[in-house]
Amino acid sequence: MAERLYCGVDLGGTNIKAGVVRAADRCQLSEVTLETGRELQPEVVVGKLIDAARQAVAKAGATLEQITGIGIGSPGPLSHKRGVVFQMANFKHWRHQPLVQAVSEATGRPTTLENDGNAAAWGEFWAGAGRDVDSLVMLTLGTGVGGGIVLDGRLIRGGRENGAELGHMIVQACGRPCSCGQSGCLETYASAWKLSLNFVEQLANGAESSLRASWQAGAQITSKQIAEAASAGDPLAQRIWNEACHYLAIGCVNIARICNPDRILLAGGLINAGEKLLLEPVRRQFAIEDWKLVCEGMELAPEIRFASLGPNAGVIGAAGAVELAIEEGTIKV
Amino acid sequence: MAERLYCGVDLGGTNIKAGVVRAADRCQLSEVTLETGRELQPEVVVGKLIDAARQAVAKAGATLEQITGIGIGSPGPLSHKRGVVFQMANFKHWRHQPLVQAVSEATGRPTTLENDGNAAAWGEFWAGAGRDVDSLVMLTLGTGVGGGIVLDGRLIRGGRENGAELGHMIVQACGRPCSCGQSGCLETYASAWKLSLNFVEQLANGAESSLRASWQAGAQITSKQIAEAASAGDPLAQRIWNEACHYLAIGCVNIARICNPDRILLAGGLINAGEKLLLEPVRRQFAIEDWKLVCEGMELAPEIRFASLGPNAGVIGAAGAVELAIEEGTIKV
Repeated sequence: MAERLYCGVDLGGTNIKAGVVRAADRCQLSEVTLETGRELQPEVVVGKLIDAARQAVAKAGATLEQITGIGIGSPGPLSHKRGVVFQMANFKHWRHQPLVQAVSEATGRPTTLENDGNAAAWGEFWAGAGRDVDSLVMLTLGTGVGGGIVLDGRLIRGGRENGAELGHMIVQACGRPCSCGQSGCLETYASAWKLSLNFVEQLANGAESSLRASWQAGAQITSKQIAEAASAGDPLAQRIWNEACHYLAIGCVNIARICNPDRILLAGGLINAGEKLLLEPVRRQFAIEDWKLVCEGMELAPEIRFASLGPNAGVIGAAGAVELAIEEGTIKV
Repeated sequence: MAERLYCGVDLGGTNIKAGVVRAADRCQLSEVTLETGRELQPEVVVGKLIDAARQAVAKAGATLEQITGIGIGSPGPLSHKRGVVFQMANFKHWRHQPLVQAVSEATGRPTTLENDGNAAAWGEFWAGAGRDVDSLVMLTLGTGVGGGIVLDGRLIRGGRENGAELGHMIVQACGRPCSCGQSGCLETYASAWKLSLNFVEQLANGAESSLRASWQAGAQITSKQIAEAASAGDPLAQRIWNEACHYLAIGCVNIARICNPDRILLAGGLINAGEKLLLEPVRRQFAIEDWKLVCEGMELAPEIRFASLGPNAGVIGAAGAVELAIEEGTIKV
């Protein structure tokens, strides 16, 4: 039997990334990145996506005929069942694109579609920091906060296929306004973008910080700089950073109560801050916020860890979604 | 073929309720209630539970041999897979009882165990206000706030079988202390017990209310009285009641984001307050708190409704859990 190969495509607002993953060892064989842009027409984006997939297949030394299936991870809202992405904040002209049909017709390969946060979580479960557990929940701390839930080895998409939006779980009633229209979402405290925004807001209000001069000189303040300044003892940076860790811990408590997974994975750019600055404070705060129910014979608290696939989680997860579709019977082999 | 009968048992701190439910029409044929008490030894509780099941079977005019299986709904933490209830706040001597084994040995019938909140939600899905949907989440607003999640027709128990603890989702960081050891749990604002407690706390702090005289005379203030006083314009009662509705709406938003169900059901004693006083304010507040993402082609917001099985949801759900166990293959027929 020929070796089984999956093609994964991660559709983002800045880039489309694609790669081929070998089923046997879940190893990524190729990687392709194409630029996208907010103004692009949907058919152009779809064309680039198909191109990225083709290039990734060629780069892996394979032909499309050798690919078992193509998996796409995309921002939502979308329908996995219908293969349609309804709209995307990243592409202003995008409305109701039947992405699965377009890709499978152009490539001749069976195609499956998942929310990008779900695909990334599935990737870690399938090939990363969740390979050894039955259940995990992942928080991807990037520009926004994405989520994905795997329980009993099953991807939990939610009743209407648009659940696991963990970044938009409200952790503070009447809290900060979120771009989604809600208030007090986890994302408003713990995404890289909002961290910077909250920090700069405080600078503008006159708060003192070692980063003030750099900000006044017109530089962007990144979450990485805030992390470093917090580590160096800057009081404003510490306040903003600790707030993020505090709300992340509350998010993890809610995940523990609702999903009760073996493991919670933190992923995304923010985890570059490292274990000492991010993971350890979140774990400490989790222990404080978590209920005090000790259950003999069953550990109820999840282990909180960093994800391991880094920026490839999206592509690997999208490729793994092909295997998921085979398991679920929606792709026949 | 003989008609298929399930026996459901709802194990609570004050009562054990049991009943026989006919599979064909999901109709409850009998009902038995036996008293329990916090001080009872586990073997006494288990004996009463078996007794309740036997009596319910006899009352339905059946014999144990005619019963396909017995389902038990119990407070947790517990393990459905192992059939063990680890501990229960309601029974102080209870530790690690292998309930399924005890009941199946005593009755000779296959037995299954579910968390009581899960069983009640499953009951509504199987035979109540969720019969016509594929996914629902239920909040049971009683002394505490229980939860249950059904997605794509499957009961979601959580990775380590103790998820769906929706009452202990934190909706207010650094909020009111909860008996579970967390702060700001939904339960601390929206359970019947905590509503009364919060109300009386305000009275003790000197707040004016039409219920003050009754409280000073030593009467208990119930959530029903608070609802009525709120309806009659009492400012303190309105404040406490509106707060409960507000946090319930936030809880519903989080359920929508994480589980994205077709329907959210409110159940438990608190719903006796009625549609006008409870359901309508929660719906209104939900629309305010919910994100403003409108998705052409897919309605993302769940419908919020009252459950329909009333205090029988536990027994009917426990009986329905037998059918679930048959579907899942853990009970063979």
